Amino acid sequence: MSRIAYVNGRYVRHRNAMVHVEDRGYQFADGVYEVVVVHRGALIDGEAHLDRLDRSLRELRIVRPMSRAALQLVMRELLRRNRVRDGLLYLQVTRGVARRDHKFPLVIEPALVMTARCNGLWSEARFQKGVSVISLDDIRWGRADIKSVSLIANVLAKQAAAEAGAYEAWLLDRDGAVTEGASSNAWLVGEQGQLVTRGIGSEILGGVTRATILRLAADMGVRVEERAFTIDEVRMASEAFLSSSSSAVLPVLKIDGGTIGDGRPGPVTRRLYDAYIGYVRSLSETSETRNTGERAG
Amino acid sequence: MSRIAYVNGRYVRHRNAMVHVEDRGYQFADGVYEVVVVHRGALIDGEAHLDRLDRSLRELRIVRPMSRAALQLVMRELLRRNRVRDGLLYLQVTRGVARRDHKFPLVIEPALVMTARCNGLWSEARFQKGVSVISLDDIRWGRADIKSVSLIANVLAKQAAAEAGAYEAWLLDRDGAVTEGASSNAWLVGEQGQLVTRGIGSEILGGVTRATILRLAADMGVRVEERAFTIDEVRMASEAFLSSSSSAVLPVLKIDGGTIGDGRPGPVTRRLYDAYIGYVRSLSETSETRNTGERAG
Repeated sequence: MSRIAYVNGRYVRHRNAMVHVEDRGYQFADGVYEVVVVHRGALIDGEAHLDRLDRSLRELRIVRPMSRAALQLVMRELLRRNRVRDGLLYLQVTRGVARRDHKFPLVIEPALVMTARCNGLWSEARFQKGVSVISLDDIRWGRADIKSVSLIANVLAKQAAAEAGAYEAWLLDRDGAVTEGASSNAWLVGEQGQLVTRGIGSEILGGVTRATILRLAADMGVRVEERAFTIDEVRMASEAFLSSSSSAVLPVLKIDGGTIGDGRPGPVTRRLYDAYIGYVRSLSETSETRNTGERAG
Repeated sequence: MSRIAYVNGRYVRHRNAMVHVEDRGYQFADGVYEVVVVHRGALIDGEAHLDRLDRSLRELRIVRPMSRAALQLVMRELLRRNRVRDGLLYLQVTRGVARRDHKFPLVIEPALVMTARCNGLWSEARFQKGVSVISLDDIRWGRADIKSVSLIANVLAKQAAAEAGAYEAWLLDRDGAVTEGASSNAWLVGEQGQLVTRGIGSEILGGVTRATILRLAADMGVRVEERAFTIDEVRMASEAFLSSSSSAVLPVLKIDGGTIGDGRPGPVTRRLYDAYIGYVRSLSETSETRNTGERAG
């Protein structure tokens, strides 16, 4: 089976998924995106991702290409055509195609591209193994809260991490405080067992998984501090982890080569991971029940 | 005549100039570009633009898609096919197409796209009219010295300028000093008639036209200070102007609504403009002579 992509109104073979060279996404990084995890056929936190997409579009004043219901229809159809049960759905909206000029064109149709692929998600083995991170100066643009395709700084950070044998780079603002990872949010467990993560602001992306973890932590009675924290604090922490839609909750066992805590996934991270996976399973089961019901009905 | 673009080895009709949705330029802004002015058929400062392209590619560790001689051949062929005598040549190189993952793919071919168009360049009327600029916080990424397609911050700045009835936005670093414009370099003429422009560093793009102006100023015996300057200094300046390949030397007559100097193009700006246009003309005449010689030979 060949992969199918959705490009501006058409379902096409992946290798024929083309956009114009004057799509402003290509020439100006003038676009936004979302990556949604598919688990047992269900779009995990799909509504929250579409809420964030709306926010990103609003911030850049890009017109939404279609209604939410229509978007969801395309998303489901693309999963069906690609037979994705566990994987990732990628969705990108750009301002559209126009003769090259920095400022917004007066008349323009937004461009919409979606791809879907089967992909291994989290696993107990991956959790146990954990990851290493390095710290790097945060040289991204000033609006990391917008999920734009302007990702060259993130690319360079991820590459530097990979070359250092690490999975992720935790980015430091001018005060030496961690903003977030190049493609994930950053967390630590403090002295009193409290969870610490950077507060919402223009320096970080309001992660969908971050928000879910905050809810789960509240349910579990884990105290949370949303504030800036330094690399020193990470080094002294009993536990640290990162979160993202595709990584869920992933223990961070080393930073810049130094071991965090006892170098193994800690108990708070464990509880949050279990709670998160439980949450995802409950979503996919609800979805399966509903889908079965629909088919039966 | 329909416009022709060059896309990854082929000359195609402009409307068929397509790249893959997984071109990393589209998904990660993982690419660089140049805009070269064409005057009377000659590529103005073409070598300097290709030098800068090489530097941008090197900084991002993107492989050069072809030799300089081959690039120049394609550039000239594209101008010929589009019959561009006065206009712009746009050239973009991205890391290429790969399954989406932030870090550099192990094996990848760079993508090369070029477009050319006829375009009005500078004119005496445009010089006399001058432009207004506004000041805005510089929220671009930390490597403005790389001419990357990661331009969303520049787009927003140009749009804000347009909505304020201005042509350009001059960007301010955290110390309130001007870095450069969203698509041009920023200059003022100080109390002693000296030229002031920001020094080379990661905060500004080393403009090709900027470098030419510095040479011309030296030839004319105009003293130059390459240093940070504030908006207050611009307000107090006798003259200010911006420079870019497509705008040449363009008087800035207002900043944030306040008039600079007497609100008309000043004498130093005039001399630099004349010198720059003279320089460009000499280049295109040399090129015409050479081309005629080649044809005769």
